[in-house]
Amino acid sequence: MSEIKVISGGVTAAKGFKASGLHAGIKAGTTKRDIALIMSDVPGNAAAVYTKNKVKAAHIPVTKKHLENGKAQAVFCNSGNANTCTPTGEDDAQHICQLVGELAGIDPYDVLPAATGVIGVPMNLEPIDTNMQALVDALDYEGSAMAADAIRTTDTYAKECAVSFMAGGKECKLGGIAKGSGMIHINMGTMLSFIGTDCAISAEMLQQALSEEIKDSYNQVSVDGDTSTNDTVVVIANGLAENAEITGPGEDYDNFCAALHIVAVDLSKKIAGDGEGCTKLLEAHVTNAPDVEVARLVSKSVICSSLFKAAVFAADANWGRILCAIGYADAEFDAANIDVSVKSEVGEVQVCKASASVEFDDDFATEIMSKEHVTVEIDLHDGDAEAYAWGCDLTYDYVKINGSYRS
Amino acid sequence: MSEIKVISGGVTAAKGFKASGLHAGIKAGTTKRDIALIMSDVPGNAAAVYTKNKVKAAHIPVTKKHLENGKAQAVFCNSGNANTCTPTGEDDAQHICQLVGELAGIDPYDVLPAATGVIGVPMNLEPIDTNMQALVDALDYEGSAMAADAIRTTDTYAKECAVSFMAGGKECKLGGIAKGSGMIHINMGTMLSFIGTDCAISAEMLQQALSEEIKDSYNQVSVDGDTSTNDTVVVIANGLAENAEITGPGEDYDNFCAALHIVAVDLSKKIAGDGEGCTKLLEAHVTNAPDVEVARLVSKSVICSSLFKAAVFAADANWGRILCAIGYADAEFDAANIDVSVKSEVGEVQVCKASASVEFDDDFATEIMSKEHVTVEIDLHDGDAEAYAWGCDLTYDYVKINGSYRS
Repeated sequence: MSEIKVISGGVTAAKGFKASGLHAGIKAGTTKRDIALIMSDVPGNAAAVYTKNKVKAAHIPVTKKHLENGKAQAVFCNSGNANTCTPTGEDDAQHICQLVGELAGIDPYDVLPAATGVIGVPMNLEPIDTNMQALVDALDYEGSAMAADAIRTTDTYAKECAVSFMAGGKECKLGGIAKGSGMIHINMGTMLSFIGTDCAISAEMLQQALSEEIKDSYNQVSVDGDTSTNDTVVVIANGLAENAEITGPGEDYDNFCAALHIVAVDLSKKIAGDGEGCTKLLEAHVTNAPDVEVARLVSKSVICSSLFKAAVFAADANWGRILCAIGYADAEFDAANIDVSVKSEVGEVQVCKASASVEFDDDFATEIMSKEHVTVEIDLHDGDAEAYAWGCDLTYDYVKINGSYRS
Repeated sequence: MSEIKVISGGVTAAKGFKASGLHAGIKAGTTKRDIALIMSDVPGNAAAVYTKNKVKAAHIPVTKKHLENGKAQAVFCNSGNANTCTPTGEDDAQHICQLVGELAGIDPYDVLPAATGVIGVPMNLEPIDTNMQALVDALDYEGSAMAADAIRTTDTYAKECAVSFMAGGKECKLGGIAKGSGMIHINMGTMLSFIGTDCAISAEMLQQALSEEIKDSYNQVSVDGDTSTNDTVVVIANGLAENAEITGPGEDYDNFCAALHIVAVDLSKKIAGDGEGCTKLLEAHVTNAPDVEVARLVSKSVICSSLFKAAVFAADANWGRILCAIGYADAEFDAANIDVSVKSEVGEVQVCKASASVEFDDDFATEIMSKEHVTVEIDLHDGDAEAYAWGCDLTYDYVKINGSYRS
């Protein structure tokens, strides 16, 4: 496999991708950017994954319809209104695609709409209508940061990642942006993420790569156990790197998947580490599981435990709560021989051996757990599969943010 | 069906049941009662349900073994140490049963051990050995409150409930105590609860009644989504009401089940309403579901949503989060025509009609949601089954309590 390099640039890192983000005023009382546009110079092959929530945002059926031909050129997103549980939501999403198409001079059918924000408030289209020309005019080959900022709601910083890799002897780039923070949970797209690549790859292989990838990245993230109505991950591949199109398995496809994995995991960790009100990224790494699905379920169970998340906030190596969360994972494995360690930049300490207590230095464990990135290492001694999951601590501020978000 | 009356007395309400609770000092730094004993004058038929967590407290295999003959006479519980993930846990639990048997003059095999507290700390038996004689001596036909107090950990008050009902022309009584507060979740026994009845009922019918009952009471409660390693519900039926033993279906069995349901639901609501750090009991009532299992799953999904629980804390009728939680319930139903209302002692207001927004008086909704018992009424318009679930709001204090519990 060829070397993959992390580069700057986010969703506009790949050739031919522009982006922009502006304040339109969809939500009252804030001056932050709230509309974003990402556009490729040429239509590309595209793939997407969506929330599994039965209550879905109105943009999702429209995006699905527009992706029936496997093609897309642009993504529009607003971060002031979820456009969910509203009477004219689909029409509003269609209207936005039409407007982008007209003003940007592209096929409205190649525009994918997305949205995040409050549920159940009818869309006010006026700020979008008024500001769309300016948004199109602001499109920039270095505009990723603007767009990443504009899709934020309670995220404390904009999330970008990009890499370069080789396919068919050509250098390709792949980069994305993401929005996370609240209502983030496993079992789905889990958030908004938009990825652009100049690699030439068929729509079918692109969808396959994305659908596989999310199992080990976006679907392994949980902030609060709540599964949003709006979660969507979109990848557009415009082929401008001029490699021979990837149409099946092989080294090029493997390189593409590895590049996608790096960007997806990086964005997933950024989403988890910037969970609403959180102070720490909590990572669970399960090893020696009977199979990868068991490893995924056990690692997710640990990062989802409210009790353990509150202990992480307090830098308390409360391994009993870890064992408890491992034990209620809905998976089959031997629970009698589990080893657990906690680690961070300052070191690692074993806190449980063979599912029972061991002597350990409590002060050192607390020091480890007071760092910003805490990893729980879980060895099930029951196979050879592994998986990671990412979450965050549960804090006073989570309660504060979510006790006042709507107003 | 005969009338069922709520009476006083908890687990000692039924004829021939004594209980006691004392401070033994199992956990340092507290003077609260931490050991409890419940005993029937004669051995009774008994049934139990346990946690589904794969990591189980050491008392559970011992209780299961002692219940193989369907008989029990006493329950011992300590609230200072979970006796879970400890090297000699089963031996310690056996030792306790032996000691109770010797000092109370009953068969040690008829003693059921139980425990709650910190996981992973080896049991210190010395305080139990030292205080067991006093605990036996303190057994009292009106001792339910002492025992209910002694099984508490972070519960803010002791939980008791009792009823009287008719079976075979005789007045029977059934009453129980419960301990809840943290690590309370669906899918299992969910907590500790001990119930005594003087009704004569076979062990088989008693187990059937309990296994059915928990689906609509204890298993519909969630405080924090965490499923404890120790949860256990035990019922002992000593037959002293002298009714003809219930050995099959019929009116007597129906009366018994109705009495058990009232006590189990009352204790379940008390557990939910006294969740760690919470200020409100949150009830979800789903109606017109395709079947009862869908109704149970949807109601549980709503009371488990961290986002909605934080909104309840803030008295915010954030119905979008309710719809979102309904939508990610793992059940099949039509999500397009859902009505939602919130209600409490001051009134009721519809906040969502046909899965979309309706005009409502926000101030009145806030007034409704600021009361101590808030109910969410959810009409799925997709069948005729119904179910309830009970939870609580998510508060700063939940984080505080669980950030400092171990130390």
